[in-house]
Amino acid sequence: MNQTKPALYTCLSPSLLHLYDISDSIVVIIDVLRATSTIATALHNGASKVIPVSAVPDCIRIGQETGGITAGERDGKVAEGLEYGNSPFEYPRLFIEGKTLVLTTTNGTKLLHMALDNGAKQIITGSFPNISAVCNYLIAQNLPVVLACAAWKDRVNIEDTLFAGAVISRVKSYFDINCDASNMAETMYDDASEDLYEFMKKKNASHYHRLTNYGLEKDIRYCLTNDGANVLCFFENDKLVVKKY
Amino acid sequence: MNQTKPALYTCLSPSLLHLYDISDSIVVIIDVLRATSTIATALHNGASKVIPVSAVPDCIRIGQETGGITAGERDGKVAEGLEYGNSPFEYPRLFIEGKTLVLTTTNGTKLLHMALDNGAKQIITGSFPNISAVCNYLIAQNLPVVLACAAWKDRVNIEDTLFAGAVISRVKSYFDINCDASNMAETMYDDASEDLYEFMKKKNASHYHRLTNYGLEKDIRYCLTNDGANVLCFFENDKLVVKKY
Repeated sequence: MNQTKPALYTCLSPSLLHLYDISDSIVVIIDVLRATSTIATALHNGASKVIPVSAVPDCIRIGQETGGITAGERDGKVAEGLEYGNSPFEYPRLFIEGKTLVLTTTNGTKLLHMALDNGAKQIITGSFPNISAVCNYLIAQNLPVVLACAAWKDRVNIEDTLFAGAVISRVKSYFDINCDASNMAETMYDDASEDLYEFMKKKNASHYHRLTNYGLEKDIRYCLTNDGANVLCFFENDKLVVKKY
Repeated sequence: MNQTKPALYTCLSPSLLHLYDISDSIVVIIDVLRATSTIATALHNGASKVIPVSAVPDCIRIGQETGGITAGERDGKVAEGLEYGNSPFEYPRLFIEGKTLVLTTTNGTKLLHMALDNGAKQIITGSFPNISAVCNYLIAQNLPVVLACAAWKDRVNIEDTLFAGAVISRVKSYFDINCDASNMAETMYDDASEDLYEFMKKKNASHYHRLTNYGLEKDIRYCLTNDGANVLCFFENDKLVVKKY
């Protein structure tokens, strides 16, 4: 058997998503600091679902309609009218189990809706806390993949690129990768893999500094650690749920 | 004196240029394989000017109006109706001295016109063959800089990113760099600098393969070598000319 492998691409910014035909692909939404890490954590800890929304007023409205917990930050603080923030540590099992989390974030939820509007075949979210689930799922599905980085206000960022590189380093033998952005991401990850946190610090990553200014070193360390919340987060019917595979 | 340093950003694709305010900046157009390398070479070898145009019909028309040499490729061959190709080796001094070169390329000339339309304060072109001229000029001007990669049909590519990284490694102490794309470019360059050609080969760079399929290894080696055509290529009044500084 000499089967053709499916293609894998890395899209480093939402502003580049239009370059990729995603209609037959699994799109992995990557917003390492911290949206997709927090989504994995809430679902791992038993949240019944996470509803990602782009704007604060929608978050409030859907929270009221669903009886869900509303969460989201703007400029490092819980947004006005919402109850909780973006930190994965706000969602331990004792608090979140069985509940709905309505989450608004600046970059990740925007990209997720872009992928939906552009007709992605499947959408999942990826983060270091659920990297093994993501990789195992991608390998099992045998479909084309686009690793889609949420970036920061459309500017390429290091942490999402590193996650794309980490996935590529694990799954590359199963895919046909003819994509410089993927090669760049893997190169970055190879350089960083020994200590992602130190790499981020050394490289003066802009979001690392934004978050450390808010006192969030503990969040960053967690968000750069593998498999702390190792579930597959699957987007269907406007919500993220755990999918068994 | 504790003067503020000007900012430097790296824009990895034309599709990201809108994210940067370039009205007060020098924009360095980077299309390593091969537009900006060929531009530097033609000007270094005495071309009176290079007129970059986006479309083949414009190239033919301006060639007729100016008496210039028309050049450009599509899919690795001299485009129909044009006289010469994109290789820097087509423009030795004996041939090009004193002449006008009207050049159309797919990615580099498009980005140059985007920078013009977006109101860049100054536009220069950058390539390894003129890297020292570019770096010395940027340092001397003390203005904000955007290193703008032409990429490949808007997809990020390795070679333009490497050039951005090479520039950053030389000029970084003169600039305030708070930009993950710049840090990524410099990381890539640090990995590659010992042998750029081998790095491109090893990383399976897509454009490297496209060109080697056309038998252009010699072009690639030249385009990855420093200072073979070390002049500053400055864009003004719709044409590129050598600027003394």
